[in-house]
Amino acid sequence: MVSKSQISFLKSLQQKKHRKEHGLFLVEGLKSVTDFLQSDFYTIETIYHTPHSAPKMLKVSGNIKFLEVSSSELEKISSLSTPQEVIALVKIPVWPEIQLQQLAGKFTLVLDGVQDPGNLGTIIRTADWFGISTVICSEDTVDVYNPKVVQATMGSLSRIPVHYADLLLLLPKIKQAVFGAMLNGENIYQTDFGAEGLVLLGNEGNGIRPEIQPFISRNITIPQIGKAESLNVAIAAAVFCSEVSRNRLK
Amino acid sequence: MVSKSQISFLKSLQQKKHRKEHGLFLVEGLKSVTDFLQSDFYTIETIYHTPHSAPKMLKVSGNIKFLEVSSSELEKISSLSTPQEVIALVKIPVWPEIQLQQLAGKFTLVLDGVQDPGNLGTIIRTADWFGISTVICSEDTVDVYNPKVVQATMGSLSRIPVHYADLLLLLPKIKQAVFGAMLNGENIYQTDFGAEGLVLLGNEGNGIRPEIQPFISRNITIPQIGKAESLNVAIAAAVFCSEVSRNRLK
Repeated sequence: MVSKSQISFLKSLQQKKHRKEHGLFLVEGLKSVTDFLQSDFYTIETIYHTPHSAPKMLKVSGNIKFLEVSSSELEKISSLSTPQEVIALVKIPVWPEIQLQQLAGKFTLVLDGVQDPGNLGTIIRTADWFGISTVICSEDTVDVYNPKVVQATMGSLSRIPVHYADLLLLLPKIKQAVFGAMLNGENIYQTDFGAEGLVLLGNEGNGIRPEIQPFISRNITIPQIGKAESLNVAIAAAVFCSEVSRNRLK
Repeated sequence: MVSKSQISFLKSLQQKKHRKEHGLFLVEGLKSVTDFLQSDFYTIETIYHTPHSAPKMLKVSGNIKFLEVSSSELEKISSLSTPQEVIALVKIPVWPEIQLQQLAGKFTLVLDGVQDPGNLGTIIRTADWFGISTVICSEDTVDVYNPKVVQATMGSLSRIPVHYADLLLLLPKIKQAVFGAMLNGENIYQTDFGAEGLVLLGNEGNGIRPEIQPFISRNITIPQIGKAESLNVAIAAAVFCSEVSRNRLK
């Protein structure tokens, strides 16, 4: 049983300003909540669950508050059209500033102004599959704690640190290769990516901002055979993840 | 100016049963409508446009009815939260049954039970980019004329025929290789796809149905480095499109 004011507080976390104010966000679904329970970065405050889902949660230990709620209460809290049986209230971590040595010897995805929550979530999930361990977003990229982003990551957000940074300050410091997803660049299938670097992808409509482009060391293009005008940014990210990981996976 | 009954008719096309009954669907946005005007498969019946967008449409010729509507009328017709200035009423083509010789010498995507409209639309757009010219869907795949699918194809639906078929009847007739996206199969990065074949992808949660699996000639896997449990089906489709096209694109 949760109070009306608690429900309206939890619902308010669907909006970025309230998430920012309270430093909290929601994770929905048994699988995702289980992933967040095992996270190295995230702390769960409270788990709201239906009576039905209680036994499944018994494995869980630690200092977490459990609160049994009815299905109709859960429905009110949920941002999903088909609510799941478990919702966790999770603390937003305060990430320390990115240190360049964190990025050494590996590939990092950098997103400039990605707007669609589904795209950001899918990119994080894809990065997690391909062993890309860090994602850096420009400050105007959609908020990663948006419920649609969290949902689309399918639990991968619990494993992949997502940092926000001013790319105009960060990129000049980078000593690795910066591979930019651009039109009219090198053919991605002929590119030797080496063993480390940043892969930079831009906004759905406008691509990488002109101010950012001077920091690209190599423009890379996914060649087109057909007639589509562009690729979805999450699809482009996947092709880049696949190509930079190819040598390791072969 | 459109009548109230016309508006409610157009709105009804957001539902599959009404699209099926009338053999019509809606395409929104200037770019997509322009693509459909140039389509080899689709016929536009009526274009609804705001006064503002009229000059942009003047290039268009043919036997198409133009109807000027107000922004608020357009908003009522639209399925989008941010309606665009042009909506076309388009005839659903009656596709002839697929002939096997249509599939010869090329790659075809086959989808078994894909449910998410955004995924299907993104897959069609990706196929169009990589020059995959045909998509075949199982009968329980989400309807391709669903407004969210049409939107996500970004005009590619005008160029890529999407057929629905009973895969249990179609697949036994196929003489080409059928590459199935499965766990524990051959490493996709070590697979020689040759010059033709079917690429079969399954449902978001359950993969390819067991009844369909016997028709797979080769199980293919995208190897995983990280910890994500699975890839989004549109992402998996993109990696397959990229790999089957790689030799041509290199």
